[in-house]
Amino acid sequence: MIPRYARPQMVSIWSQETKFRIWFEIEAHACDALAELGVIPKDAAKTIWEKGGGATFDVERIDEIERETKHDVIAFLTHLAEFVGPDSRFIHQGMTSSDVLDTCFNIQLVRASDLLLADLDALLAALKRRAFEHKDTVTIGRSHGIHAEPTTFGVKLALAYAEFDRCRNRLVAAREEIATCAISGAVGTFANIDPRVEEHVAAALGLKPEPVSTQVIPRDRHAMYFATLGVIASSIERLATEIRHLQRTEVLEAEEYFSPGQKGSSAMPHKRNPVLTENLTGLARMVRSFAIPAMENVALWHERDISHSSVERYIGPDATITLDFALARLTGVIDKLLVYPERMDKNLNQFKGLVHSQRVLLALTQAGVSREDAYRLVQRNAMKVWEHGADFLTELLADKDVTAALSEADLREKFDLGYHTKHVDTIFNRVFGAA
Amino acid sequence: MIPRYARPQMVSIWSQETKFRIWFEIEAHACDALAELGVIPKDAAKTIWEKGGGATFDVERIDEIERETKHDVIAFLTHLAEFVGPDSRFIHQGMTSSDVLDTCFNIQLVRASDLLLADLDALLAALKRRAFEHKDTVTIGRSHGIHAEPTTFGVKLALAYAEFDRCRNRLVAAREEIATCAISGAVGTFANIDPRVEEHVAAALGLKPEPVSTQVIPRDRHAMYFATLGVIASSIERLATEIRHLQRTEVLEAEEYFSPGQKGSSAMPHKRNPVLTENLTGLARMVRSFAIPAMENVALWHERDISHSSVERYIGPDATITLDFALARLTGVIDKLLVYPERMDKNLNQFKGLVHSQRVLLALTQAGVSREDAYRLVQRNAMKVWEHGADFLTELLADKDVTAALSEADLREKFDLGYHTKHVDTIFNRVFGAA
Amino acid sequence: MIPRYARPQMVSIWSQETKFRIWFEIEAHACDALAELGVIPKDAAKTIWEKGGGATFDVERIDEIERETKHDVIAFLTHLAEFVGPDSRFIHQGMTSSDVLDTCFNIQLVRASDLLLADLDALLAALKRRAFEHKDTVTIGRSHGIHAEPTTFGVKLALAYAEFDRCRNRLVAAREEIATCAISGAVGTFANIDPRVEEHVAAALGLKPEPVSTQVIPRDRHAMYFATLGVIASSIERLATEIRHLQRTEVLEAEEYFSPGQKGSSAMPHKRNPVLTENLTGLARMVRSFAIPAMENVALWHERDISHSSVERYIGPDATITLDFALARLTGVIDKLLVYPERMDKNLNQFKGLVHSQRVLLALTQAGVSREDAYRLVQRNAMKVWEHGADFLTELLADKDVTAALSEADLREKFDLGYHTKHVDTIFNRVFGAA
Amino acid sequence: MIPRYARPQMVSIWSQETKFRIWFEIEAHACDALAELGVIPKDAAKTIWEKGGGATFDVERIDEIERETKHDVIAFLTHLAEFVGPDSRFIHQGMTSSDVLDTCFNIQLVRASDLLLADLDALLAALKRRAFEHKDTVTIGRSHGIHAEPTTFGVKLALAYAEFDRCRNRLVAAREEIATCAISGAVGTFANIDPRVEEHVAAALGLKPEPVSTQVIPRDRHAMYFATLGVIASSIERLATEIRHLQRTEVLEAEEYFSPGQKGSSAMPHKRNPVLTENLTGLARMVRSFAIPAMENVALWHERDISHSSVERYIGPDATITLDFALARLTGVIDKLLVYPERMDKNLNQFKGLVHSQRVLLALTQAGVSREDAYRLVQRNAMKVWEHGADFLTELLADKDVTAALSEADLREKFDLGYHTKHVDTIFNRVFGAA
Repeated sequence: MIPRYARPQMVSIWSQETKFRIWFEIEAHACDALAELGVIPKDAAKTIWEKGGGATFDVERIDEIERETKHDVIAFLTHLAEFVGPDSRFIHQGMTSSDVLDTCFNIQLVRASDLLLADLDALLAALKRRAFEHKDTVTIGRSHGIHAEPTTFGVKLALAYAEFDRCRNRLVAAREEIATCAISGAVGTFANIDPRVEEHVAAALGLKPEPVSTQVIPRDRHAMYFATLGVIASSIERLATEIRHLQRTEVLEAEEYFSPGQKGSSAMPHKRNPVLTENLTGLARMVRSFAIPAMENVALWHERDISHSSVERYIGPDATITLDFALARLTGVIDKLLVYPERMDKNLNQFKGLVHSQRVLLALTQAGVSREDAYRLVQRNAMKVWEHGADFLTELLADKDVTAALSEADLREKFDLGYHTKHVDTIFNRVFGAA
Repeated sequence: MIPRYARPQMVSIWSQETKFRIWFEIEAHACDALAELGVIPKDAAKTIWEKGGGATFDVERIDEIERETKHDVIAFLTHLAEFVGPDSRFIHQGMTSSDVLDTCFNIQLVRASDLLLADLDALLAALKRRAFEHKDTVTIGRSHGIHAEPTTFGVKLALAYAEFDRCRNRLVAAREEIATCAISGAVGTFANIDPRVEEHVAAALGLKPEPVSTQVIPRDRHAMYFATLGVIASSIERLATEIRHLQRTEVLEAEEYFSPGQKGSSAMPHKRNPVLTENLTGLARMVRSFAIPAMENVALWHERDISHSSVERYIGPDATITLDFALARLTGVIDKLLVYPERMDKNLNQFKGLVHSQRVLLALTQAGVSREDAYRLVQRNAMKVWEHGADFLTELLADKDVTAALSEADLREKFDLGYHTKHVDTIFNRVFGAA
Repeated sequence: MIPRYARPQMVSIWSQETKFRIWFEIEAHACDALAELGVIPKDAAKTIWEKGGGATFDVERIDEIERETKHDVIAFLTHLAEFVGPDSRFIHQGMTSSDVLDTCFNIQLVRASDLLLADLDALLAALKRRAFEHKDTVTIGRSHGIHAEPTTFGVKLALAYAEFDRCRNRLVAAREEIATCAISGAVGTFANIDPRVEEHVAAALGLKPEPVSTQVIPRDRHAMYFATLGVIASSIERLATEIRHLQRTEVLEAEEYFSPGQKGSSAMPHKRNPVLTENLTGLARMVRSFAIPAMENVALWHERDISHSSVERYIGPDATITLDFALARLTGVIDKLLVYPERMDKNLNQFKGLVHSQRVLLALTQAGVSREDAYRLVQRNAMKVWEHGADFLTELLADKDVTAALSEADLREKFDLGYHTKHVDTIFNRVFGAA
Repeated sequence: MIPRYARPQMVSIWSQETKFRIWFEIEAHACDALAELGVIPKDAAKTIWEKGGGATFDVERIDEIERETKHDVIAFLTHLAEFVGPDSRFIHQGMTSSDVLDTCFNIQLVRASDLLLADLDALLAALKRRAFEHKDTVTIGRSHGIHAEPTTFGVKLALAYAEFDRCRNRLVAAREEIATCAISGAVGTFANIDPRVEEHVAAALGLKPEPVSTQVIPRDRHAMYFATLGVIASSIERLATEIRHLQRTEVLEAEEYFSPGQKGSSAMPHKRNPVLTENLTGLARMVRSFAIPAMENVALWHERDISHSSVERYIGPDATITLDFALARLTGVIDKLLVYPERMDKNLNQFKGLVHSQRVLLALTQAGVSREDAYRLVQRNAMKVWEHGADFLTELLADKDVTAALSEADLREKFDLGYHTKHVDTIFNRVFGAA
């Protein structure tokens, strides 16, 4: 976890305090079920909630015990016993450490997912707002980094909206993947614990029972989870890259927000760097990379080995904290993005009117000019624009071979930007739903 | 594509012939819609189907034209025109190459997914059959590669069933991701083509219209697709690794099928190598690795660049062909797996009865022996088993301190394997549904 | 292997014909050594070379035998015996298949490396030539995609030269890694074959004996090899990305070569897409991705398992063929790159003179103006350039507070581009050596 | 950084304190050179060393300034000025932040490399000691996890030694890659700073001047560095996997050290889990995964973007700290590894004498028995061993068809383990050098 790329709420999910609190709840809910089944006294279960529920666990103390016992769950239970007293002997009966560890890890991932879903909602809201704001802001569409045909800046943002909406759906599915609970004992056979305990704990904690576990919860679930985060990160990179491109000195159609008084911009007003989106590009690389060790974690030996554990100590917090930070940062960027429609217009007309050459070509052929001739006509006028900065329409109107085929009105009509934007409403309806 | 890791049906999806056939269908369906909208003559659309529908496209010829024009779609259209005649001028109106290429790629991925889903169904059927066959075949569960508690071989297979059932769900979702169609023209604005054409083509080809495209279909969809294949591959690796472990000389609880007359096994009967599952381990590495370039493909520049294309020429065929082969191979391995229950029993009892030491320990404490004393009693008898190969139950029965706390009947009951398997039915019900 | 991204010489290294020829040479050289040691008759070794050396192996026939025996090396030896006759019984004595397979794989990688080194040499030559050609072509340096300070286009290319020169050194080291030979028999103990055979074969084939092998040559060597190719691919991506940026419509300081008559450029002269460098970007992603499975291949079980084999069937050819193609393509791009110094100059002066604002600021403070005042002075003139397109020097010369501190000569000197290029020779000397 | 996988010396390299100390040294050395060149007063350089050299930088204070200025280097320089006084205005003249940041990062990586090299030396020493200890400890070699031919445990360790010796060489080369210094100013042209300053700082800090930089030090160097760490991690995984296999209950030829009194082992003496090597397997996955974002960092835009920075904040510390921990842990495992020669012997003879079947087969054919007959003879006796637990030699001696071809002495000779170990000295000489 890199503090500068971390937000407190997500960080707190991964704190030792949170972890021990979740461990307690798993154990206490299990005790309720065990009491209900008559395995342990009902009073004991009650006592455990009463004395442990309000306890403030001492992380230092637990660490100290762990250094001795070399076992984290035992260390916690020993500390918990210091609060609960003699009834603590009824805690953890028939369970294994993995029951607690794996269920806890999944709860942390579920909570992380909920924050990430909220992040995505905020991002979607920002994208939607700015998309409608710029629904009709015409800008040049680019393929291969080269001017192609006009589109609108709102369509660009609608595209991003649709993409992150897909990301949201993916995350909902990924959250489902890891929202499971295993209280199945050693090697997952329930030999020492009734499956109804698992069902109770799962329900109490908003999880589903893992249908079949092997002491550990199968790691294909987590592989799918982290792979999904990697895909979301890749979408962040895409949008960040778009903004970085738009902010290039020569393009400058949009900029990350710069407060008027922000240092450094005064003497070199062009020197406003897209540092936030560059940063997002790097963060995306990190989150994406975590998919590989997560997939390598799947092939545990037999009923379990512990090789996945160290990996998860890194990627559990790092992937979720980084992605949370990145989504929030991206939301801020979109929210406050400075958009320059005049510059978009200027860039669009960099080669005066040339962007309409395809339509003119088509019109000529439709007017009966042979394909070869039409090409030649368009070309000779296009080159004047390209090489001498002439205005394409003016040149065409002055070319008798052109005007012989197309009237001035016809020609002018081919230079109508509205031609390119006539279906923007359709696209918006598809993406955002009918108004 | 490595021929030895390829099956013909999947390979044929990626053939040039199939690709050109799909291109034709996209173009012809688009013509139907254009005709319906009055953009082109209805007769032309009919002619195109009639003359192109039965045509056998000449791949060599198309390649030859491409070498000249350096454009694959133009080369195809030129060749198509040789069949269709003058009406061919109505084909591809208002469309871009990407409309054809991207929609075709998605159709190929959909078809590939359907084969993969069938592969998974076959694998699930094999796993289910063998799981029920060995529902009660007791075997030792292992954590860390070390004997832990008993389970059944059927439970191992039920776990694999549940895992591949999740993989199936994931693949269904991944298939949805890429089952889209884009016929939206340059930079995706529909400037030159009515959105209803896209709707028609999508419906005709079993796809959904891409809500908003940018000349290309957004590549986050494909990133998710290939990441999902990577997760499935990881599950293949897990099961393959399990079998490789079971076939080790010292374990030998199961073996890949070896035909009685198969060469090489005669002089060294122990030398039957798990080469199929080792091969699957390697194939899994490959399929998994494709997730990374697929994610890197997401961040295309602006409305599109072509950097994704070369990546997809590799991973489109390679990921699906390899995974198809791997799933089929794994199904064969499971289907014919030689299982050795006697050896499972022998391994389980490698340390005679020691596997029950935990239960004895628990019983002693429940019988009122202090935890420390119980430990000492179990330990001193356990060490005789461990060091001298004694029988644990015999030793316990001969230990007066033990029998003072537990009767012979009580002790014998702790050695009942049924204790560990009593919830196998529950697990099977959860995984396969109630009988 | 994707035919369109493959060149024949590299492809031929990976052909079945080449493989069998190498197998033959390994076996024949081993026979020489065995004959020298008196293990087999000298006449036999001679016969093997005579009859096998000129043989044209029939790949179909070998495949046919393999389908029967399910063993590739046995199939080959059977076919070889058809040429050699009775003396063939002396071939392969004391060897294992891995001795042949692994040594052959390394020979193929060595040959591939030699081609790649030649590719790098060609690329370096092109970079050097173009670097000197544009040593003094001033262009704007950009940080964050934003104009920073001037540099020269030659320096950009010198940087690329230095980078690929490092890549060359890395490849030389990587080639060393895999230039080893193992003829050590089952589990690598030389039980059935004298270590001197390995030494002889290694020397004959230009390899070093593997100091200690375990039936297989350790795969950390190959991991390092493919990781190195991944790094080289990343450098290709960097340079390709630079060119893609320079070719953007708004930048257009350089372009991939476009033959005058090339189709598609006539009507839309701006629509020249950097498709080669975009393609290189995608190819780089693929080559890079192969590093991961290559690293996963290292952890073979005990003395060997066969999981690496399927991975290598993909990445052996794919990584080398793709990188060979990519390096050659990049060399072509550099060789024929269209460079537009006028446009570089125009871009550099997009904000007339503003690029020199830092120097003016510094000069003011050095002339005794307080930092705050200097800032204010530069800023108020800079904003005129930024907002109204004024000329920075003209504005400064008209600002009495500025001219109070700096003379016109002083000011003009601050606008000298030579200030930024004065150490270009030093850089070139460092990179290319003193003239 | 995960505290439990971190050792203090490596952690301290990445502390804020260390970083600021390095920054100071870079600046102060640059001042020396600037003073020598007459750009700043010599007294100032002296003052800077005197007042800054002994200063204890206040990290909190610097952070506070950074929150204001949003610039880390400026924050540091501001704080430094609080110690140095007016002469602080001579610091950093003509330099950019990247000069400080990149050179510092490389210094940190160099220091990390030195620790890692020491780690490798310790590991090599442990491997060598244990290799010689078990040079003649015969054990079964395994291919595919299946018994193959005998080898010695010392040879296994010699193999690991050779592998980590290669890793050491690779790390030395990787250290060279990143041991460079850039003090070249904005976009690397030395416009504002003399190249001799870079040369001086480089020499003073044990680095080489970067021949050509672009404001940043090219990231192909770092890609190579982190890829190399990934390969080393893969070798750790290989050896860890070997040990995990050896510790399996059914194999148990070696075990991670367990202190006699260590908890948990008493009641279930077989339950000693190879948790350290499992942990190393997971740590290896993490270190390996960092190679991918490091390679993605290479393609920075133009003269630099800042996307690499966030990646390096993760992988700089995480890769080196984790690898340092892993190497030290592995050294401890090897150093104290419990080796069980008796069990090795027992496993080797699991199928009594069958491991020698190949040699018997060969001897029969060499004695003139036809290949088919020899096979049949070996097979029928081998099956008795395989199926009924007979002793292979006894059976062969009782088979008249066998003894007709081979004398008892001949047969017994084929069961000599020395046959397999006769070249162990050769191997050791190759790996460790002649005695």
